[in-house]
Amino acid sequence: MKSIRDQVAVIGVGCTKFGDLYDKTYEDQVCEAAFAAYDDAGIDPEVIDAAYVGTYIPHAQGGKAGISLADPLRLYGRPVTRVENFCATGTDAFRNACLAVASGQHEVVLVVGAEKLKDRPGRGIPRVGHQLLAKGNSAPGLFALAANRYMHTFGVGRETLARVAVKNHWNGARNPLAHMQVEVTVEKVLAAPMIASPFGLFDCCPTTDGGAAAIVCRAERAHEFRKDPVLVKGAALAVATGRPYFDPTFDYLGFRSTQAAARAAFAQAGVTPGDIDLAEVHDCFTWTEISNIEDIGFCAKGEGWKWVEEGRTRIGGQLPINPSGGLKSFGHPIGASGVRMIYECVRQLRGQCGERQVQGAELVLAHNVGGPGAVSCVVILGLPA
Amino acid sequence: MKSIRDQVAVIGVGCTKFGDLYDKTYEDQVCEAAFAAYDDAGIDPEVIDAAYVGTYIPHAQGGKAGISLADPLRLYGRPVTRVENFCATGTDAFRNACLAVASGQHEVVLVVGAEKLKDRPGRGIPRVGHQLLAKGNSAPGLFALAANRYMHTFGVGRETLARVAVKNHWNGARNPLAHMQVEVTVEKVLAAPMIASPFGLFDCCPTTDGGAAAIVCRAERAHEFRKDPVLVKGAALAVATGRPYFDPTFDYLGFRSTQAAARAAFAQAGVTPGDIDLAEVHDCFTWTEISNIEDIGFCAKGEGWKWVEEGRTRIGGQLPINPSGGLKSFGHPIGASGVRMIYECVRQLRGQCGERQVQGAELVLAHNVGGPGAVSCVVILGLPA
Repeated sequence: MKSIRDQVAVIGVGCTKFGDLYDKTYEDQVCEAAFAAYDDAGIDPEVIDAAYVGTYIPHAQGGKAGISLADPLRLYGRPVTRVENFCATGTDAFRNACLAVASGQHEVVLVVGAEKLKDRPGRGIPRVGHQLLAKGNSAPGLFALAANRYMHTFGVGRETLARVAVKNHWNGARNPLAHMQVEVTVEKVLAAPMIASPFGLFDCCPTTDGGAAAIVCRAERAHEFRKDPVLVKGAALAVATGRPYFDPTFDYLGFRSTQAAARAAFAQAGVTPGDIDLAEVHDCFTWTEISNIEDIGFCAKGEGWKWVEEGRTRIGGQLPINPSGGLKSFGHPIGASGVRMIYECVRQLRGQCGERQVQGAELVLAHNVGGPGAVSCVVILGLPA
Repeated sequence: MKSIRDQVAVIGVGCTKFGDLYDKTYEDQVCEAAFAAYDDAGIDPEVIDAAYVGTYIPHAQGGKAGISLADPLRLYGRPVTRVENFCATGTDAFRNACLAVASGQHEVVLVVGAEKLKDRPGRGIPRVGHQLLAKGNSAPGLFALAANRYMHTFGVGRETLARVAVKNHWNGARNPLAHMQVEVTVEKVLAAPMIASPFGLFDCCPTTDGGAAAIVCRAERAHEFRKDPVLVKGAALAVATGRPYFDPTFDYLGFRSTQAAARAAFAQAGVTPGDIDLAEVHDCFTWTEISNIEDIGFCAKGEGWKWVEEGRTRIGGQLPINPSGGLKSFGHPIGASGVRMIYECVRQLRGQCGERQVQGAELVLAHNVGGPGAVSCVVILGLPA
């Protein structure tokens, strides 16, 4: 297989504070993230010759299409493409920006992920319809079906799930941009109100506003912008059925889209899961993190919960997972989350993460899953050899 | 500027009948278009290693994201990206597929544009809100503002606009896939009910269901699939403001996004507007076709209406415009339209268009504009040298 490996570099990243941003518009978030990335790359915005916007429900805010980005940033006369792929929207926008650079058609490409979910009641996620939600066809309800099967199959209790929340809140409490900068205990997680069994409130990521940005260019030009560029080693997306729960061959223990995307990304990068130093994975619910690290291939199916119990996924452990705090603590503005993962990964590789820094990180992985389970995207980033 | 010129080939195209497809689902349309393209390319669907879906409001039908394509076509385990860019959605999906191939990451990429607009009352385009529509903030209302300014500035009457409809209906009456296979006269166009002055019913494209598909691969592999591949010479998108009518520098005579996209596409292709043998341009309204051929550069601003009067844009004229019948007669299923243009362009280059064939077509152009005016995409296709 041909690969984009080492052809594309990340030269700048930016991220807004994530949270209940009632005082900021969608456009404010786009500008704040993009200008942080411009500053980080040390470039004039005029250098940007193409852009991608990852945004899931921008129409709730009046934006959509390329103008979601072009108008706030005055990116006129250039291509701006909107990418949407459920909760994998952000990493897929990043993946397409990498392909645009690797094609030779574009030199310096901006990616922004942004979502405004909090201050338009009835026009955000709940718009999927009360009829569906009343039947449990919500994100917590659907992921909970698989979590229950997993817990039943492998003999896992809610305490194990809670330890994912404890870890990610501990990490997020050390992240000044995180939505939920507060530590929690297993007792607090277990005592929280039930959302969709086995998920209590602290098993669920919050609904969050925010924006994140990254700038990519051809690897051979990266040193014009930064002395410490990060290389894209692989970026792969895979779709499975959008109705996994109606697929009679679905085992409810993990997601095929993640398994396929991870295989493809590792093949592109020419590395194995054991080579990865840390990963940002899609912990929309505590169980999802456990399942994902198995589906990515860090450990065998049914072993992920033991890794949590044994502390291997903590900062300082064998393979730190979500040192940023993850969706659980950093928050989940849908289209922004994947780009925010790229932000965290790049800053970890540069050693810029302060108290939550993973020492010696040289090869890192970001993973989005959406649908639930319908689509996954895996990006592998690394330091130059 | 580096360019994708001659790196990517179109090896298959397909298109459904466009129209009021009450007997077909969104998924039916996707399958019909894609399998027509598979047959046209003579390939096994398993060869497809990535896909793009151009779709504007799929959620009205329960689809969205990559699964809009993956589920009906069982394109599992591979990347499928949804692209959305207003009415330029279809050509932008095609453009991104070309970039994916040119990147070297993917070998054979499917593009499908699809939209189901007719049989879900209240969940299609009208969902933009009755408040906005009541103030004239509809597509006919917004394009009419510019049309009126153009007609006032250049002394053009409704009869000239009507001649665009007469031409495109004449062409479409010779197209078995067109929505409106009926000829009209200037008198009939002028006597039709007024929609938004100066646009009567026959100045407006219809609301249409349909799907279209194209398959692209690396140019050097094209002969494995077809002996007559078509080469992608250029594909460029440009955004302008999403609120052009509130821009004090907007002259209401044409769209900057089209001007910028056309300049970029011609630069990529290394050709000039005078080299083009036919064009499919975005005639959502009769006036739009006139303005577009000026903005693309086929003639000077204020000259396009004379080209119509002089018959230069007819089949057999100096530069046939919309030999397919255009949006006006072929119909306008939003995300499908741009891919349908690629379909027509490829078949014209192959000499497969029967009664509406433009003789000797070797270099052709497709153009989408959406927003109105916010985003445009221009694709140039040609026969190998």
